[in-house]
Amino acid sequence: MKGTSAWHDECGVFGVWNHPDASRLTYLGLYAIQHRGQESAGIVALDGERHLIKKGLGLVSEVFDDAAIAQLPGRAALGHVRYSTTGMNLITNCQPLTANLANGPVAIAHNGNLVNAHLIREELRELGSIFHGTNDSEAVLHLIARERSPDFLKCFCASLERLEGAFSMGALSHRALFAARDVHGFRPLVLGALEWQDADGGRQVAHVIASETCAFDLIGAKYLREVSPGEVLIMDDSGLRSEHLTPRPGSRLAQCIFEHVYFARPDSVIFGRSVYDTRKRAGRMLAREQGIPADLVVPVPDSGVPAAIGYAAESGIPFELGIIRNHYIGRTFIQPKQSERDLGVKIKLNPQTEILKGQRVIVIDDSLVRGTTSRKIVGLVRQAGAREVHLRIAAPPTTGPCYYGVDTPEKSQLIAANQSLDEIRRFVGADTLGYLSVEGLLEAAQAPRSDFCAACFDGRYPTPLFGLDETPGGSRREIVP
Amino acid sequence: MKGTSAWHDECGVFGVWNHPDASRLTYLGLYAIQHRGQESAGIVALDGERHLIKKGLGLVSEVFDDAAIAQLPGRAALGHVRYSTTGMNLITNCQPLTANLANGPVAIAHNGNLVNAHLIREELRELGSIFHGTNDSEAVLHLIARERSPDFLKCFCASLERLEGAFSMGALSHRALFAARDVHGFRPLVLGALEWQDADGGRQVAHVIASETCAFDLIGAKYLREVSPGEVLIMDDSGLRSEHLTPRPGSRLAQCIFEHVYFARPDSVIFGRSVYDTRKRAGRMLAREQGIPADLVVPVPDSGVPAAIGYAAESGIPFELGIIRNHYIGRTFIQPKQSERDLGVKIKLNPQTEILKGQRVIVIDDSLVRGTTSRKIVGLVRQAGAREVHLRIAAPPTTGPCYYGVDTPEKSQLIAANQSLDEIRRFVGADTLGYLSVEGLLEAAQAPRSDFCAACFDGRYPTPLFGLDETPGGSRREIVP
Amino acid sequence: MKGTSAWHDECGVFGVWNHPDASRLTYLGLYAIQHRGQESAGIVALDGERHLIKKGLGLVSEVFDDAAIAQLPGRAALGHVRYSTTGMNLITNCQPLTANLANGPVAIAHNGNLVNAHLIREELRELGSIFHGTNDSEAVLHLIARERSPDFLKCFCASLERLEGAFSMGALSHRALFAARDVHGFRPLVLGALEWQDADGGRQVAHVIASETCAFDLIGAKYLREVSPGEVLIMDDSGLRSEHLTPRPGSRLAQCIFEHVYFARPDSVIFGRSVYDTRKRAGRMLAREQGIPADLVVPVPDSGVPAAIGYAAESGIPFELGIIRNHYIGRTFIQPKQSERDLGVKIKLNPQTEILKGQRVIVIDDSLVRGTTSRKIVGLVRQAGAREVHLRIAAPPTTGPCYYGVDTPEKSQLIAANQSLDEIRRFVGADTLGYLSVEGLLEAAQAPRSDFCAACFDGRYPTPLFGLDETPGGSRREIVP
Amino acid sequence: MKGTSAWHDECGVFGVWNHPDASRLTYLGLYAIQHRGQESAGIVALDGERHLIKKGLGLVSEVFDDAAIAQLPGRAALGHVRYSTTGMNLITNCQPLTANLANGPVAIAHNGNLVNAHLIREELRELGSIFHGTNDSEAVLHLIARERSPDFLKCFCASLERLEGAFSMGALSHRALFAARDVHGFRPLVLGALEWQDADGGRQVAHVIASETCAFDLIGAKYLREVSPGEVLIMDDSGLRSEHLTPRPGSRLAQCIFEHVYFARPDSVIFGRSVYDTRKRAGRMLAREQGIPADLVVPVPDSGVPAAIGYAAESGIPFELGIIRNHYIGRTFIQPKQSERDLGVKIKLNPQTEILKGQRVIVIDDSLVRGTTSRKIVGLVRQAGAREVHLRIAAPPTTGPCYYGVDTPEKSQLIAANQSLDEIRRFVGADTLGYLSVEGLLEAAQAPRSDFCAACFDGRYPTPLFGLDETPGGSRREIVP
Repeated sequence: MKGTSAWHDECGVFGVWNHPDASRLTYLGLYAIQHRGQESAGIVALDGERHLIKKGLGLVSEVFDDAAIAQLPGRAALGHVRYSTTGMNLITNCQPLTANLANGPVAIAHNGNLVNAHLIREELRELGSIFHGTNDSEAVLHLIARERSPDFLKCFCASLERLEGAFSMGALSHRALFAARDVHGFRPLVLGALEWQDADGGRQVAHVIASETCAFDLIGAKYLREVSPGEVLIMDDSGLRSEHLTPRPGSRLAQCIFEHVYFARPDSVIFGRSVYDTRKRAGRMLAREQGIPADLVVPVPDSGVPAAIGYAAESGIPFELGIIRNHYIGRTFIQPKQSERDLGVKIKLNPQTEILKGQRVIVIDDSLVRGTTSRKIVGLVRQAGAREVHLRIAAPPTTGPCYYGVDTPEKSQLIAANQSLDEIRRFVGADTLGYLSVEGLLEAAQAPRSDFCAACFDGRYPTPLFGLDETPGGSRREIVP
Repeated sequence: MKGTSAWHDECGVFGVWNHPDASRLTYLGLYAIQHRGQESAGIVALDGERHLIKKGLGLVSEVFDDAAIAQLPGRAALGHVRYSTTGMNLITNCQPLTANLANGPVAIAHNGNLVNAHLIREELRELGSIFHGTNDSEAVLHLIARERSPDFLKCFCASLERLEGAFSMGALSHRALFAARDVHGFRPLVLGALEWQDADGGRQVAHVIASETCAFDLIGAKYLREVSPGEVLIMDDSGLRSEHLTPRPGSRLAQCIFEHVYFARPDSVIFGRSVYDTRKRAGRMLAREQGIPADLVVPVPDSGVPAAIGYAAESGIPFELGIIRNHYIGRTFIQPKQSERDLGVKIKLNPQTEILKGQRVIVIDDSLVRGTTSRKIVGLVRQAGAREVHLRIAAPPTTGPCYYGVDTPEKSQLIAANQSLDEIRRFVGADTLGYLSVEGLLEAAQAPRSDFCAACFDGRYPTPLFGLDETPGGSRREIVP
Repeated sequence: MKGTSAWHDECGVFGVWNHPDASRLTYLGLYAIQHRGQESAGIVALDGERHLIKKGLGLVSEVFDDAAIAQLPGRAALGHVRYSTTGMNLITNCQPLTANLANGPVAIAHNGNLVNAHLIREELRELGSIFHGTNDSEAVLHLIARERSPDFLKCFCASLERLEGAFSMGALSHRALFAARDVHGFRPLVLGALEWQDADGGRQVAHVIASETCAFDLIGAKYLREVSPGEVLIMDDSGLRSEHLTPRPGSRLAQCIFEHVYFARPDSVIFGRSVYDTRKRAGRMLAREQGIPADLVVPVPDSGVPAAIGYAAESGIPFELGIIRNHYIGRTFIQPKQSERDLGVKIKLNPQTEILKGQRVIVIDDSLVRGTTSRKIVGLVRQAGAREVHLRIAAPPTTGPCYYGVDTPEKSQLIAANQSLDEIRRFVGADTLGYLSVEGLLEAAQAPRSDFCAACFDGRYPTPLFGLDETPGGSRREIVP
Repeated sequence: MKGTSAWHDECGVFGVWNHPDASRLTYLGLYAIQHRGQESAGIVALDGERHLIKKGLGLVSEVFDDAAIAQLPGRAALGHVRYSTTGMNLITNCQPLTANLANGPVAIAHNGNLVNAHLIREELRELGSIFHGTNDSEAVLHLIARERSPDFLKCFCASLERLEGAFSMGALSHRALFAARDVHGFRPLVLGALEWQDADGGRQVAHVIASETCAFDLIGAKYLREVSPGEVLIMDDSGLRSEHLTPRPGSRLAQCIFEHVYFARPDSVIFGRSVYDTRKRAGRMLAREQGIPADLVVPVPDSGVPAAIGYAAESGIPFELGIIRNHYIGRTFIQPKQSERDLGVKIKLNPQTEILKGQRVIVIDDSLVRGTTSRKIVGLVRQAGAREVHLRIAAPPTTGPCYYGVDTPEKSQLIAANQSLDEIRRFVGADTLGYLSVEGLLEAAQAPRSDFCAACFDGRYPTPLFGLDETPGGSRREIVP
């Protein structure tokens, strides 16, 4: 479901409590949310009181096979897929992170980015904690380790209270599965149920958690509800119960609007709304706000398709797959020596001359970050013979980086933070360029503006940033691959 | 571009003559036609008078990296991607096949299936030829080796005259690149040109051949024309010239209609016509022939999309991506132990409840072979809440296997060869089922029926079959992986 | 140099300060001491102020290649080879262990076994330290991390004072290389010097440390002296200097006699004496103590060869390589289904019928632990036709396990701890059996008994054992390979 | 058993007929003769009438594991290990070579080198045979394929009659195992028997063939006899029988004396004589012919050890392991940048200063080819402090290359073919240098001179050479690894 923009989501989380096939369901769940992170995958299974662990660099299907899953027995499991936003892509950064604490084994799987992890890290290092990876999540594990209570839930909650920023987190002890979400509710996290029959034919219910509902669809689980912002949900043998984190004064709900714009799979329900529907509605809003006469509406596949369908329906201009996407793209791609520059885009996207030649074309993309990819696409569409190219973006101009788990470039590289609309239009080479307004986007999401974080579009960061906007230093320790 | 049907194309061919970056262009060309074969890839480069060879099992991006390409210097190259139709997937079957003959090195890359290869094989084996692989193409190499002329072109043409069936073939000697197509023209093969500048700034032209035009789009080459049925095209330092194979009495043009229905990439031009356009027109024809009142037109992605766009446009019923495809599907997929059966389809295709619930849905697929996949899709769409499911197939009922290079199951497994329309409808579980007529399909392809092979739909095989419809025996020699 | 007995040494250490080729010399040094540990290998290089790290499971030659060494530039390096005595063979247990502490990066490489590591581990875990591996050395790193001084030497020495048991340890900070040896001097550790010329032709001296002198021979370094028991040697840009650890009351020198019996390479000088010479002298002593008329003296190769040479010289009975060793033994060896049991020994050792038939044979081995291997060897020698088989062991009966770094089985499996001499003789099937006395062994080593630990032979453990003789529990966390 | 000289044997052969564990025994047999070829290994099993094949580059233990053997069921098997003498080390050159011929599947495994293979190859290529590898053995397969008889034995014998040079060959059809040896008997090949019990307790006998008897020792088979020169032995369900090849006029027995000097394992019986005993006797003869007063006799391990034992016994000068060999040598070894040149030798061989200092040392090696290795060893022994170094070679001066399967360098690189005894002495840096005479060597082997080929020492090649002494040209086809 990855489009062509420079935005990348960072992580996906999946967990199961009380199912004989726990690690296999987790494998499937991670498969379904693979789009949230392709660099590493990991599963921790709870076998009796032991944690069994398997992690690796690569896709879920590369890290796990039947033999690996067979070595992860047990009735509970926690899994993670990761795209690195903080920390290099080392095996030590793969999640779930695990430790044998004095009160038992623990595993955590984190989606989101903490804004005060570097401060906690320094503080704990001064006290003698040893950090092995470079990611922000490891600090959470050390906080838990230093909470000296035999009650894991207490340790977990106390540690979470220290964190600022975005976390949708699963945790597994030898007694329970936990699901926690920061008080702002930046990243999604949902709860579901899956019935099964035990050997005696008795009806049993497994609880499952996931970053997105599409994971439930795959395993046939029923979507119950979101984990609430600030909730710590405990799933154990006595059922479900909840604790609640104390919001800091002045803190507010701040669901990430970019999940709807680009991150989430279109077939997921995020923050209670269908992503596909939001995107299609965004396309309709865009047609209303930025309409122009043309012959064809052409999406940048795959992420621009729903908005283009909406735009076409609203405007009455025919929808055409004028750009064909090649899905056989491996990890590495060899650049030819003597070639035009846009081969990186061309290898994925092929505009069809037969469709585009002589036409006035509206090209729909989900977002526009650096502008370099859009420039290439507009160029290719023109080379294919389009008479006019009108670029329409189903999101507002991206003017600020994200500190909550989206891998955006720094401000200097965000074209809309540095250039005027007309300069951008000239840079990408379009005849006209139109963005959706922030209001239009939020109306498409059918949500009040106060419920969302749209800081990347409007600059209103809902938390302090603790100096994160300064350039970070390098590590003194490096592992040779 | 692979859809959900059981049809698979078998091979793709790409070649370059006279370009300093020959093997790199071949790598790119194979990348573009990866959909024609994902089991093995190979490139032979002509470095001076030597052939340098690299082949392997897997995708182009898995077999080749920068270092491998760097070891394939030279101004000419020939490449191949393969999905096995005859012969197991062994490294010895990977193409291009190569040999050091008395008159120099030779490499061949073959798309299509020969119907008399087994006879030639037996004959040559009796004469003492040793066969290493299990594919039909190896027989061609042995025929060439036994033609005892110092003139390679003569050997090549004489060998091709012995073949019956489908071949679109590239060959590379130490003097020239060759492109040959059987007299029926079953499989596509196109010729292009790519300009480049030499060190002195002089304008040079490289000739390129490919199974599909999308490969030319990627490398920026200009599409010149098809290699004609029966033509043997010679590209060497004196330019282009042609020989022509003698058609057998009664033989006729027989271009494969299935290339348009399913095989070829939608952005290719096949037999002179845009595939995307043919498929969209097939969707329009289907709406005319098999129209029914409904709320939504939903394609089975990706291969059903163009026909669904056409159907929606013709019928005025809204087009919706009601089924979302997950492209992060690895090679291996672990089946859960306790699960419904349709997970193999579900892992790829997720129908959206939010879109489908309570709707009357027309589901569009490109073809229907065994019926098992369609049955699963219809079931999933119903589970997602669709009120009515009307399955529409943008091709006629598949009633016969292909012997010319399409991996169809045997007749007993083709549901339309064994059951009535209503039986099929009941099997797949649709409220109604409608196929496109053969006439409608050919009208969509804007071609006279006599130019095409539609044997899989109408049973009219354009060549003798030499007993191929009987069950083949196994090999006495097997390689342990 | 590995023989057939069940004894395994655990680790080897090598370090360099002030040489432009530091990691390459370390690679060579590890190569030379590969016999001390074949399960993992690692090198940390100091590049400016950064630590660069490469570790892996396998032999030095498997973990490192030219490219890996090229990525480890710098003028100082520390390396380690490991055979696991405590802790499973996981990548997290590979040494050198490293951390980024508040006062800079640190790496440690440890040979020997601590007897109080489990106590320190529990204590630190209660305080919130997170342990990732299962080895005893990780505790040292955590102790250092919790010493809150900016002066690394102080932290290091204070941490070492907390340890009880055996350690010959290298450490690397960003300022210096350190070599430390416990006050008992259990394991060897030697200091050498290597001259080189800088670009200006100036004479420079690198300091090197190693577990054995054979590592100096390979790189052409000069052996200076042993690191003294209780010494902490600092090598930095101002040269060499030493600190000294405080011995606990009553602690004594306790050099491991088993290094001479089996562990060390015969061409090393250990505790100031040639290993080869000690072994040959042990053979001479054995001939004097346990002489018997015979036709041939036959060593169990390779480790029994020097003693057999000594025995033959002393007794005047001819030395013969009557058992031939096959060195092409890979890691894995497939046991045949239908076969005699002793194939595990037979694959390595082949007694020669032509030599042994009808002879009275004295078989010399370095030690006898469980007796199972000796039983197989005696059986094979008899099958080869020997008339009489007299087993002579160039060491005393092994009656106690080692807690200082030798991987001996528990007491119940030590045959000499549980059976009489005659019972052992009957078990192994020899006509006569004779061991060397403890006194004879120490005389061969030319050392006073008080300088050595011979606890495995005489039961006099030189330190408290802190409950180590009880069965340890398993871990709650396990990594799936 | 590899020593330090530049000589390498090329291949080893092993086969079994009528044993339920055939491939497993073959695996073990190849293990035992691994010293004859370390570059590739392969096994073909006969399962019913099918051949199952597994081959690969690397050691036996690297190519095969339990799973691979499990996939090679059946009651007969043929195996091969290979060091390339003709032909690059490609997977296509790995043996056994196999083909599906008109009269069934065939596999051949060849030890030795043919002197007319290049002529046969050219002739067959002209006739249209396609060669895939670069080795001489492939020609045999093509000869068999072109013999158009349904009787495999006839085809096999007729093909062997066409060969000139050295072959000890195993062949497997679907009916029998064959063992053939050229009329000169250059390379060894032995026959053995192994009893086993069937499910009914009935006594069964398997026949086994091997390059050396040490393979029989490992599997517990009984050595029956050599396959005779010129014999073609057939093992099938009716038992054993023989055919005999017709010797060419004037051809003579020519057993390779170098098998005794260096190739064979010391614990094998070759041409009816113990290799160890021959080498020890060669040492005794050397002491008689080239005696000199000294303090120590020191072998170059491992291959020089038996001769040194003989020399020491004859001369009364003490035998000492003054040079220690490190067996942990991987395939690749990284050369340091700033180092003395002899590290390649030093990594394997470490002279002991403690033993050699101030002594008059006789160094014994098995042979001297280029002189470069001997020069390094003499230098290292001197650096270790030896007062005098007397080099004694337990073979005559090597003056001619081998064309029958020994990988000797060309004449220009054989120091004894180009320099006088005193020049060689000066080159290697010894105080004195002495070789064994040809007569002395043959007396040690207890064989009449007429039975042996000693062409590398005396220049009397027992067959025509067909121009093989000229430089061969390269191939026009190359496979990129």
